[in-house]
Amino acid sequence: MIEWRRKDLLGTYDLTREEILLILEMARSFKEVSLREVKKVPTLRGKTVVILFYEPSTRTRASFEIAAKRLSADTLTLSAQVSSSQKGETLKDTAKNLESMRPDCLVIRHSMAGTPHMLSKVLRFPVINGGDGTHEHPTQALLDLFTIREKKERIDGLNITIVGDILHSRVARSNIFALRNFDTNVTLCGPCTLLPREFERLGVRVEYKLSEAVRNADVIMVLRIQKERGGLSLIPSLKEYFNLYGLREEHIAMAKQDVIIMHPGPINRGVEIADEVADGPYSVILDQVENGVAVRMAVLYLLLAGRAHEDSN
Amino acid sequence: MIEWRRKDLLGTYDLTREEILLILEMARSFKEVSLREVKKVPTLRGKTVVILFYEPSTRTRASFEIAAKRLSADTLTLSAQVSSSQKGETLKDTAKNLESMRPDCLVIRHSMAGTPHMLSKVLRFPVINGGDGTHEHPTQALLDLFTIREKKERIDGLNITIVGDILHSRVARSNIFALRNFDTNVTLCGPCTLLPREFERLGVRVEYKLSEAVRNADVIMVLRIQKERGGLSLIPSLKEYFNLYGLREEHIAMAKQDVIIMHPGPINRGVEIADEVADGPYSVILDQVENGVAVRMAVLYLLLAGRAHEDSN
Amino acid sequence: MIEWRRKDLLGTYDLTREEILLILEMARSFKEVSLREVKKVPTLRGKTVVILFYEPSTRTRASFEIAAKRLSADTLTLSAQVSSSQKGETLKDTAKNLESMRPDCLVIRHSMAGTPHMLSKVLRFPVINGGDGTHEHPTQALLDLFTIREKKERIDGLNITIVGDILHSRVARSNIFALRNFDTNVTLCGPCTLLPREFERLGVRVEYKLSEAVRNADVIMVLRIQKERGGLSLIPSLKEYFNLYGLREEHIAMAKQDVIIMHPGPINRGVEIADEVADGPYSVILDQVENGVAVRMAVLYLLLAGRAHEDSN
Repeated sequence: MIEWRRKDLLGTYDLTREEILLILEMARSFKEVSLREVKKVPTLRGKTVVILFYEPSTRTRASFEIAAKRLSADTLTLSAQVSSSQKGETLKDTAKNLESMRPDCLVIRHSMAGTPHMLSKVLRFPVINGGDGTHEHPTQALLDLFTIREKKERIDGLNITIVGDILHSRVARSNIFALRNFDTNVTLCGPCTLLPREFERLGVRVEYKLSEAVRNADVIMVLRIQKERGGLSLIPSLKEYFNLYGLREEHIAMAKQDVIIMHPGPINRGVEIADEVADGPYSVILDQVENGVAVRMAVLYLLLAGRAHEDSN
Repeated sequence: MIEWRRKDLLGTYDLTREEILLILEMARSFKEVSLREVKKVPTLRGKTVVILFYEPSTRTRASFEIAAKRLSADTLTLSAQVSSSQKGETLKDTAKNLESMRPDCLVIRHSMAGTPHMLSKVLRFPVINGGDGTHEHPTQALLDLFTIREKKERIDGLNITIVGDILHSRVARSNIFALRNFDTNVTLCGPCTLLPREFERLGVRVEYKLSEAVRNADVIMVLRIQKERGGLSLIPSLKEYFNLYGLREEHIAMAKQDVIIMHPGPINRGVEIADEVADGPYSVILDQVENGVAVRMAVLYLLLAGRAHEDSN
Repeated sequence: MIEWRRKDLLGTYDLTREEILLILEMARSFKEVSLREVKKVPTLRGKTVVILFYEPSTRTRASFEIAAKRLSADTLTLSAQVSSSQKGETLKDTAKNLESMRPDCLVIRHSMAGTPHMLSKVLRFPVINGGDGTHEHPTQALLDLFTIREKKERIDGLNITIVGDILHSRVARSNIFALRNFDTNVTLCGPCTLLPREFERLGVRVEYKLSEAVRNADVIMVLRIQKERGGLSLIPSLKEYFNLYGLREEHIAMAKQDVIIMHPGPINRGVEIADEVADGPYSVILDQVENGVAVRMAVLYLLLAGRAHEDSN
C-alpha cells in the first residue's frame, strides 16, 4: 500500500484513488476501537488537536473531538463566539498565533470558501478542512465513500444520485470530486435554481425530475436546503419543495432493490426527506455518523503519525 | 447490597429506597477521591460522557464534567449555542446521531419536561437527567439526601421543610419523590401562587406561613425564585418576597437547635435567604456542592461500569 | 535558587526580582516539552485547573488550557455565556461553589479590576489573574520578560519603550511593575488622552512623540487600542492614530540596530503597527505566544506542585 505524503487534508479535489483507498482502509481498522470496552488507543498521546469552528456544528465538531480523544490526543475547541476576531485580528494572525503554541493539527470550519487552503500555506503543521463555505467538506465525502463501500462492497460501477440544494452544498462538491476517481455514474437532481446546468462540466449528469434521477440508483444521497446560505430564497416554499424533490417511499421503488439512502445531516424531516425514508430499512444515515468517527481517526492518524510510519495503533 | 439494574437515571420518582442507598454508599466511597493528591481513578478510562445542556448551567455542568474526569472518562460538552437544532434537526435526531458516535452516557439538561425520558426510550445507552424543565433534577435530590445523611447520620425520622418557588422547582419535586422512601415529615412553604394546594396529594404538608413551616425543622431547604420560568410574575416584589419568605436568623431560632440549611444554588442573597443564614454555621450549602461531585461519580459509575460489577474503583 | 511561597499569582506589582527569575528559569525548562514528539509530562496528573473567563479570549485561554494539558492536568473551561451569574449569583458565590468541587487552581479573567485579588482572599486554593480590567495581566508581562531575556540575554540595562493605549492596558501596567525589579529605562508613548502624565509617578519616562520615544530603544512594545474599553473615543480616528503612533519602518531605523518589536496581540494591522513591522525580522510577536505556554506551565507548576518541591518534571 502507498504511504501518505500530504501535509493537509483540504479537499477531495486532488486526492488520488490510492489516497482515498488508503484512508478508507485505515478507517476500517479504526472502526473497531469505538466498539471496545475501553475505546482508546495511545496512538496520538501528547499531540494537541485544535478545533477552530467559525460556523455552528454539533455533528462534525463532536466527531472530530471524539476521534481525537479516542486516539489519546488532547483537544482544544475554539468557537467563533470566543474568538479574538472580535478584537480585529485577521484569521491568518489567529492561526499563526495558535501555531506558536505548537499544536499538531488544526481542524477549521469557516463560512468563507478557501480559508483552509489559505491557512495551509502559512502554517507548517497539518490543516484539515472541516467545511469551508459552499466549497468542500472532505471528511464528509470520505465517510460517505466509506459507508458506500461498506454496504456495497465496492464503489466502482455504482449509480449514485445526489438530490437537493447542490448549489450551496460543500458535501455534494466533495463527493463529486472524490467519486471521479471511481467508475461511477453520478446524477445530480434539484430545482434549476439550486442546480445550475454548469455542474455538467464536472462530468456528471444533471436531471431536474426526481423520478428520473432515482431510477436504477444504487445510492441516493439527500441534501438539506441550506437556509443559512440563502437556499430558502431560491425555492417557492418548503411544502412545494417537498412535493417536487422530497424523497418518499415511491421513489425508493424506482431505484435498485438494494438502494441505500444517505444524508449528511442534520435532516429536515418533511422537507427534503419523508420520515418513512429517513427511518426506513435502506437508510444508512446513522451508519454514516458512526463511520465519521472512524474516518476522522484515520485522517488524524495519517496526518499526525502516519507520514513517518514510526508509530502503530 | 443490591446490584444496580437500571439503564438510566431519569428521576427519583420511581427509585426505591435500596437504589437510593446504593447510590449514597457508592458516593461515600468516591468522596475521598477528590481529597487525594492525585484526584483520579482509572475506573472509566476509555469511556465517553456527552454533556448536552440546552439551558445555562455552571454548577451542574462543572460537577458532571469534573466527576467524569476524576473517573478518567473523556467528556464532550455541547451547549445549546453550538447545537444543530439551529439547523432544524429534531432533538431525537441529534441524540441518535450522538449515539452513533458510541458514547457511553448522555447527561441532558433541557427546558422541556420529559425530554430525558423520551430520549431514554430511543437510546440504547445510559441517559442521565441533568434537569428537565420544572420536572425533575435527580442528581440534585440525591446529593441533598447524601448531605442530610452525612450531617444527621439518618434520613428517617427527620422534619424537612422546603421553602420557596415550589411550583417551578424540579429540585423540590425530585426531593419530595426521593424522600417518600423514608419516614420523613416534609413541609412545603411559599406564597400560594408558587405553591398550589395540589402539592398535598404528594403526601406532604403545605404551609403558607414561614414561621409555622420552620418550627421544629431538622432540615430547611431554600429554593430560589426561578426568574427564567416566570417566577417573578407571581410575586408582588422581591422585597416583599423577602419579608414574607426570605429565611432569616429569626427563623433559625424556631427550628431544631441542630437544624441544617440547604440550597441547591445559585442563591439570590436578600431574596430567598439572608446573608447571615447563607453564611451561618448551620449552612451546608457548600457541602452540597462538594457532595455533588461524589454523587455524580457514583451515578456515572453505576450506570457505566456498575451493572456488570466487573470493575472496581 | 529560592523556593516559591505564594499561594496566588495576582499581579507583578509585588513580585520580587528573585520570584520573577524563578518563574523565568522554570519556564525555560518547560519550553522544550512543547518541542517533543510527545508533548506531555505527568507533573500535574489528577489536578483540576478551572479556567473562568468573563471576557472573550482566544490566545490567553488557549495558552492556559494547552499549558495545563501538557502538564497532564484536567481542565474545566467556563465562559461568561454559560455562567450562573445570569441567575443572579455573586461572583464570590460562584467561586466558593467551584472551590467545593476541589479544583487545584482557578485562572480568572474579568472586566473588573481587583476581581482576582478579592477571590484570592476567599479561596483556599491558588488563583491566577488571567487579566482583570485595565489593571494587571501578570502572565503576559512574565512572558514578555522571558522573551526579552531570551533575545537579549539580559533585562538589566535595556531601553524599553511601550507605545499605545497605555491608559487601558493591563499589559503595560504589569510590565511596568515587573520591570521595576530590573535596571531598565522604560519610556511610555501615546497620545495624551491615552497616556496621562500621572504615569510618571511609576518611575518611567512619558514621551508624546513617537520618534523621540523609540530613539535608542532595545525593545519596543506596541499595544492595541482597546476598543472594548472606550479607547476609540479618545482618538480622532484610527487613520490619524496610525499617522502619529503607528509603528512603521522609519521608527525601526531610529532604534538600536538589534531592536526587537513586541505586541501582546491581537494586533490591529494598519492601526498601531504597520504590516512590514509586524512581519519584519525584528518582530518577536510569535515568540511571545510560544513562550506564553512555557511561562504558564511554569506558573501552574510553581503554584500547584512547586511549593512543596516533592515533585519533579
